[in-house]
Amino acid sequence: MVPIRNGRHVFNEIASGYPIPGQTTVYDGSQTVDLENVPLDGGVLVKVLCLSIDPYLRFMMRDPEIEKHFHLYTLGEPVQSAGVGVVLRSENPSYAQGDHLHSEMLPHQEYFVAPKNTSFTLLKNEAKIPWSVFTGVAGLTAYAGWKQFAKPKKGSTVFVTTAAGPVGATVVQLAKAEGLKVIASAGSDAKVEFTKSIGADVAFNYKEQDTREVLAREGPVDVYWDHVGGDIFDAVLENASFGATVIICGSIAGYNGAPNPVHRHALIFERDITIYGFRMTTISPAYREAFYKEIPEAIASGKIKYREDVTEGLENAPQVMLDVQLGRNEGKSIIKLASE
Amino acid sequence: MVPIRNGRHVFNEIASGYPIPGQTTVYDGSQTVDLENVPLDGGVLVKVLCLSIDPYLRFMMRDPEIEKHFHLYTLGEPVQSAGVGVVLRSENPSYAQGDHLHSEMLPHQEYFVAPKNTSFTLLKNEAKIPWSVFTGVAGLTAYAGWKQFAKPKKGSTVFVTTAAGPVGATVVQLAKAEGLKVIASAGSDAKVEFTKSIGADVAFNYKEQDTREVLAREGPVDVYWDHVGGDIFDAVLENASFGATVIICGSIAGYNGAPNPVHRHALIFERDITIYGFRMTTISPAYREAFYKEIPEAIASGKIKYREDVTEGLENAPQVMLDVQLGRNEGKSIIKLASE
Repeated sequence: MVPIRNGRHVFNEIASGYPIPGQTTVYDGSQTVDLENVPLDGGVLVKVLCLSIDPYLRFMMRDPEIEKHFHLYTLGEPVQSAGVGVVLRSENPSYAQGDHLHSEMLPHQEYFVAPKNTSFTLLKNEAKIPWSVFTGVAGLTAYAGWKQFAKPKKGSTVFVTTAAGPVGATVVQLAKAEGLKVIASAGSDAKVEFTKSIGADVAFNYKEQDTREVLAREGPVDVYWDHVGGDIFDAVLENASFGATVIICGSIAGYNGAPNPVHRHALIFERDITIYGFRMTTISPAYREAFYKEIPEAIASGKIKYREDVTEGLENAPQVMLDVQLGRNEGKSIIKLASE
Repeated sequence: MVPIRNGRHVFNEIASGYPIPGQTTVYDGSQTVDLENVPLDGGVLVKVLCLSIDPYLRFMMRDPEIEKHFHLYTLGEPVQSAGVGVVLRSENPSYAQGDHLHSEMLPHQEYFVAPKNTSFTLLKNEAKIPWSVFTGVAGLTAYAGWKQFAKPKKGSTVFVTTAAGPVGATVVQLAKAEGLKVIASAGSDAKVEFTKSIGADVAFNYKEQDTREVLAREGPVDVYWDHVGGDIFDAVLENASFGATVIICGSIAGYNGAPNPVHRHALIFERDITIYGFRMTTISPAYREAFYKEIPEAIASGKIKYREDVTEGLENAPQVMLDVQLGRNEGKSIIKLASE
């Protein structure tokens, strides 16, 4: 068979501020692959169908001196993120041709051979929903973090930032399903409308309304799902109830430049506040099975609303990486490489 | 009987920076009390023996606009803090003459009548240790916070700030009793020597040695007992292990002026860090019985070392309030009013 193009989205340069399309990461369409003859050595040839672009990917682009312990992308190699692929050929008895696989570290490459010991999550899709829903980092992050840490009391008030984003929107809906009052902030009027449509009791555009004022009026906040850090974190501490819970699963205010400081640290002990920081990779394995059992079906039936912002073609990935950092995406950001 | 002096240590003015002796709080020796004839109305006449002066008292001197939810001292009325008194007369069947009582909110007044529904902790003192040890806020705070939140793994490294202080020194010894590695910081060479004498594996003067360097060399930190906030908090986040626990029971860096900001907030989720803030009053009731059963005896036998910095006479209380904020005390700060 004639070799065909094997496009790659490659990490090219350590980021200092926002990732610059074509500089921090670049699309490289120069490589080819012979799908019939590429040697597998006991591994699996995977065709990548869709990739998830999430804010936290920015971490893996940074100077290793800043944070040595966090996984970093390798210069000159494909970026990695959560995604779904389909098996074209296999020498691994665990995976058969046609199987759909999920990984949180799929290479941004149209086709790749996974070495023989690579482990994937085998996807079933009984609800017949789009495979992109299974990229799942965001939903699973929200689900696992909420189940593990929120433990809200009846009648609690929950505040969710970036509430129109894929993690935030899931948290809003999980909280509403438990009958709680949800305050949601987002960065555009369209996003605010979306958070209302999924059930937020109070929704506001934080660029136009002062978060402190809204929380003073609608709070105090019993559970805060934090994506932003910085001054908003202070605003929440100032309007937190005694015994409040804060769940931190991102801090986008500090990803792309000088981190925003938190000044009201003393309120953490003055108000008996507990703060749980977590990376998705730490707690999600324990919740993966429950999540896949419950959530795709809830999405298929419309019980949980879910929005995607799909961009076709890996050549657009460098731009999407920046768009997600700037909050330009409306819904879960997906790069679609192929339908099947 | 002739009325005798009833000295009071009175809250006189809201503090903006450090409390100013004779201005923020003042000693007033103008009142008298007739111990035989003062009416009790079903209450108890208490002679105050000793009072605990703790950093957190600064909170109750502040502008109510800053933090509405926290108890504040009443202008013109005695300051309150933890202390021990003895019953001189009683019309309350729960307390008899000669009983020793503990309260976390004893008025700074040589004698006072507690209204009939006032509740105290009745002290037994089988180990015959000085009553001042039972002022106990510090020890109980450390004990309750450690038992409730630390849950260290075997081989963990613990970092304690203001480790020569009454809370810190107890934490150091509780951690050592569990066989953990303890890094201790304090603000003078004498305090550093004391923390070594109670078992700290690594002790340093944070004014002379860089906390970041010490933690980078001796860490990473698995459990951090935080008293200071600010830049030291950042230094710990930078040198925290994955899954680290932070216990905040004070934040003296922000008590007396602009609070010190925390910049490395993002590390909380990057490293799966859990932060527990707590006020002594919230969790200590559950641990009071175990504490009084275990700790006074351990102090009496020398198993737990305990230092007091005793000042005689309530007239010196305004100065001691400032000294404690400045860390000038060597050991638990006590105002002794009377021996019995």
